[in-house]
Amino acid sequence: MLTLYSYWRSSAAYRVRIALNLKGLVYRQVPVHLVKDGGQQHAAEYRALNPQELVPLLVDAGSGAGEARIAQSLAILEYLEEVFPVPALLPADPVQRAQVRALGLHIACDIHPLNNLRVLQYLSGQLGASDEAKNAWYRHWVDTGLAAVEEGLAAFAGRLSLGERPGYLEACLIPQVYNARRFDCDLTAYPRILEMVARCESLEAFRNAAPEVQPDAQ
Amino acid sequence: MLTLYSYWRSSAAYRVRIALNLKGLVYRQVPVHLVKDGGQQHAAEYRALNPQELVPLLVDAGSGAGEARIAQSLAILEYLEEVFPVPALLPADPVQRAQVRALGLHIACDIHPLNNLRVLQYLSGQLGASDEAKNAWYRHWVDTGLAAVEEGLAAFAGRLSLGERPGYLEACLIPQVYNARRFDCDLTAYPRILEMVARCESLEAFRNAAPEVQPDAQ
Repeated sequence: MLTLYSYWRSSAAYRVRIALNLKGLVYRQVPVHLVKDGGQQHAAEYRALNPQELVPLLVDAGSGAGEARIAQSLAILEYLEEVFPVPALLPADPVQRAQVRALGLHIACDIHPLNNLRVLQYLSGQLGASDEAKNAWYRHWVDTGLAAVEEGLAAFAGRLSLGERPGYLEACLIPQVYNARRFDCDLTAYPRILEMVARCESLEAFRNAAPEVQPDAQ
Repeated sequence: MLTLYSYWRSSAAYRVRIALNLKGLVYRQVPVHLVKDGGQQHAAEYRALNPQELVPLLVDAGSGAGEARIAQSLAILEYLEEVFPVPALLPADPVQRAQVRALGLHIACDIHPLNNLRVLQYLSGQLGASDEAKNAWYRHWVDTGLAAVEEGLAAFAGRLSLGERPGYLEACLIPQVYNARRFDCDLTAYPRILEMVARCESLEAFRNAAPEVQPDAQ
């Protein structure tokens, strides 16, 4: 049995929900509220499961080695790919796999961590940044990052990362665009991204992973 | 032939140098100075190779599909693992692979991006943060992140991530600790990390990857 510790608005958790859905895997969700109670991810009970104090966390009770606890969304995606290889999230060719991972990692390393909740809280709190300065920071990293992703998508020539199917790349991209829209970022300069997002948003795996339809959505 | 676009002090490039050395691969380095000329990673010539405008970039002229250009250090590590599988950087067991990746990704996603050069420049520049505030920011994310890594290392019971051999995990950890020391972070609370670092620092693959001995070191 697969259990996902998740928060509806966490875009890292959103990536994993998409991947689980694309693979047709059944999972239950345990909500971890990132704001309430000073952040439930910092509670002793959750820290015992995941010392990183972040969501998502996947617990696989059926792994060969007993109950496996896996943190970090991209480690979870690789784990799912290795343990449940069909349908694949990554292309078969090593160079294409690397190109897809490089775009996903660009989102996961160079856009998202700069804009997640704990960082925005530090900017407002310890650094005393105004809302205006905080929003400018947010948009700066979104723009810098998505401009590079837009160029990277040229290699796919209007197709999805697995040809007619989405996978690892789209599981990273769609949550990032969801975040960008939440903060009113202007995305008109990124037509390839918008086209890829539009194609994915019509698919059930993505619709069922969307923040608004999660059990803990508010 | 393998070519690594690198900057001696980039800890992401340092990860890749370690991985290349651990696999015994011969490569040439092309230095990209991240400060000089307003940052050579932003020059048109480099942008044409890597629109992400970051180092490292690996160019594999001998890939089956012609010249492959691969950005993002962790995408490069996975590529090397797939194309040059021996010696391995990751354990064979899927759960152990996931645990190692989760620790590496925690460093690469949740510590390093918050403390890299372009972010520190934004804090000083656009946000007007003092040196003191900037250093406090740096140490905050190092402390938060390394505390979690320290707990994660308990699973290895004093051994390296591949038993007697280092791999992916150590390729991520040693550059992060190098950075932390550069900013005078107090690491005494992390004895497992310090022991792992000490074991690696005596190995040739790590010594030859160190920033100070790179051709562009200043």
